[in-house]
Amino acid sequence: VVAVLDSTRAGRTAHECVGVGGDLPVVGDLDDAHRLGAEALLVGIAPQGGELPAPFRAVVLGALERGWDVFSGLHVFLGDDPELAERARARGATLWDVRRPPVRRPVAAARAARLEIPVVLTVGSDCNVGKMTAALELRAGLERAGCRAAFVATGQTGIFVSDRGVAVDAVPADFVAGVVEDLVLEAARDADVIVVEGQGALRHPGYSGVTLALLHGAAPSALVLCHQAGRDRLRTADDRSGAAIPPLAELVREYESAAAWVRPAAVLGIALHTATLDETAARAAVAAAALQTGLPASDPVRFGVEPLVAAVLARRARGRNHATAS
Amino acid sequence: VVAVLDSTRAGRTAHECVGVGGDLPVVGDLDDAHRLGAEALLVGIAPQGGELPAPFRAVVLGALERGWDVFSGLHVFLGDDPELAERARARGATLWDVRRPPVRRPVAAARAARLEIPVVLTVGSDCNVGKMTAALELRAGLERAGCRAAFVATGQTGIFVSDRGVAVDAVPADFVAGVVEDLVLEAARDADVIVVEGQGALRHPGYSGVTLALLHGAAPSALVLCHQAGRDRLRTADDRSGAAIPPLAELVREYESAAAWVRPAAVLGIALHTATLDETAARAAVAAAALQTGLPASDPVRFGVEPLVAAVLARRARGRNHATAS
Repeated sequence: VVAVLDSTRAGRTAHECVGVGGDLPVVGDLDDAHRLGAEALLVGIAPQGGELPAPFRAVVLGALERGWDVFSGLHVFLGDDPELAERARARGATLWDVRRPPVRRPVAAARAARLEIPVVLTVGSDCNVGKMTAALELRAGLERAGCRAAFVATGQTGIFVSDRGVAVDAVPADFVAGVVEDLVLEAARDADVIVVEGQGALRHPGYSGVTLALLHGAAPSALVLCHQAGRDRLRTADDRSGAAIPPLAELVREYESAAAWVRPAAVLGIALHTATLDETAARAAVAAAALQTGLPASDPVRFGVEPLVAAVLARRARGRNHATAS
Repeated sequence: VVAVLDSTRAGRTAHECVGVGGDLPVVGDLDDAHRLGAEALLVGIAPQGGELPAPFRAVVLGALERGWDVFSGLHVFLGDDPELAERARARGATLWDVRRPPVRRPVAAARAARLEIPVVLTVGSDCNVGKMTAALELRAGLERAGCRAAFVATGQTGIFVSDRGVAVDAVPADFVAGVVEDLVLEAARDADVIVVEGQGALRHPGYSGVTLALLHGAAPSALVLCHQAGRDRLRTADDRSGAAIPPLAELVREYESAAAWVRPAAVLGIALHTATLDETAARAAVAAAALQTGLPASDPVRFGVEPLVAAVLARRARGRNHATAS
């Protein structure tokens, strides 16, 4: 990534605007991005409903006019827009709609439940609490510990990061679990541990179905529960319905109950997203989560993912001993 | 319906072939169906994966050639097939793919949970255990009892029966709950009670996500648990994974727990599908279900839906008294 395009904040750095991204420059138009070496455009937003905002259209057209590839994770497929598709064709540019579902229509049948290697799924108290980040950090930590760890991307950003996967929330509902099952079985061919990116939350009224399909399609043996420290209500489309998030220990029981409808799974640890807290408050939140659940806890970005890696490795060792003993 | 098309069983009646359908004749080709007055073709199968079987193609083409409308509930959309679409256009016939999802992309936010009228959802121990039939019988029974009862169809056959609804299993997963929420809110404008057709099962590894999205999108206050008497294992795509179906009382607890993640709901009764049992065994199965769960039970087709109607009306009366008292 050479630049972030935001006409309202040009001249600043990513860090100055959103607190992460370091010195990455924010530029105001495609010309400035081009001067920095850009040759592709990524539509980096995920609005509820997934439409292309009207002001973005001219920018996408401008990028295609230059022959740049355009990557999009929107629910609306840019490649289905006649004007955009024609412009891409004329300029030899590629429109990559990463949310476009696969053509195949697999129906899950708990086949991933028969894998002997650990399958770890990140689950959450809500949307946007760090499930993808925790999964990526866990994969990296497992690799540092000498494991061949596979990351299964299930959302558009995960796909941009890992260059493969399926945005399961755009798959026709009957086939979400089946697509995830396929991804996990494919990843198992060349891995010692599989880490699956979770989506949504069992208590989210809009997305709980995606969450349960992932839980039953991936059929994990282990879960990592993710939560944003300080968030006490669900973020939904309708402010009035933002129900209270229950204590973490209750969420642990709920996810383990729902997993067991297909395959028993244990929550191995808690991944907290503490970016909005100062250092002292963040450490206190991690300690409180560990105390309340009796599980290892960390903010994998801020304090390291090692406690969660250790929990997965311990589980893997127990699984092997069990396999040897039986 | 004037005839059933089945080249392997022509000359018999529907009842002789499948035990229901009375004297409806089975015919071997479109000519015979035409002689009986047919002027439309309904593709009446729902194979896993939802493709059009190759032998059906010529029949669909033949029907369109005659100018017949063709209705389909397959996951594959006949209208997207260039040859079929062209034939329909040339002959002025309509291809109606009832599973085609709506263009709108609503995200649910538990809005249906604020309805004061009862919303009743049928849920099940597995797929194909009578959830649609129980819902249709319940609606009819409530109307006989003087209620304005709405039926919300969520699957292709329910849509064929009621001429409206959405096949939610074909909707992109993010919007299943939102589509159901919209359907329920729309039905509430003109009804005293809403009966929603359920789909799948919370323990089915392939379809549990659809089930939970329906449960949280419809946000029912009451559930009817459906089960086929004698079925003891889930029917999945992979025979090896057909897990045991737990006792009904345990399923009652599971559905009530999962509902409560968004809105508390009580299972009001059990609808048993007993068609494979003789009269004595069927009555014994109904009695056993009632005894085991402490709830009213019936086979709504064989023994009448009245026990379930009475349970819904009692619940409605309690809701009203509560509203008056508070």
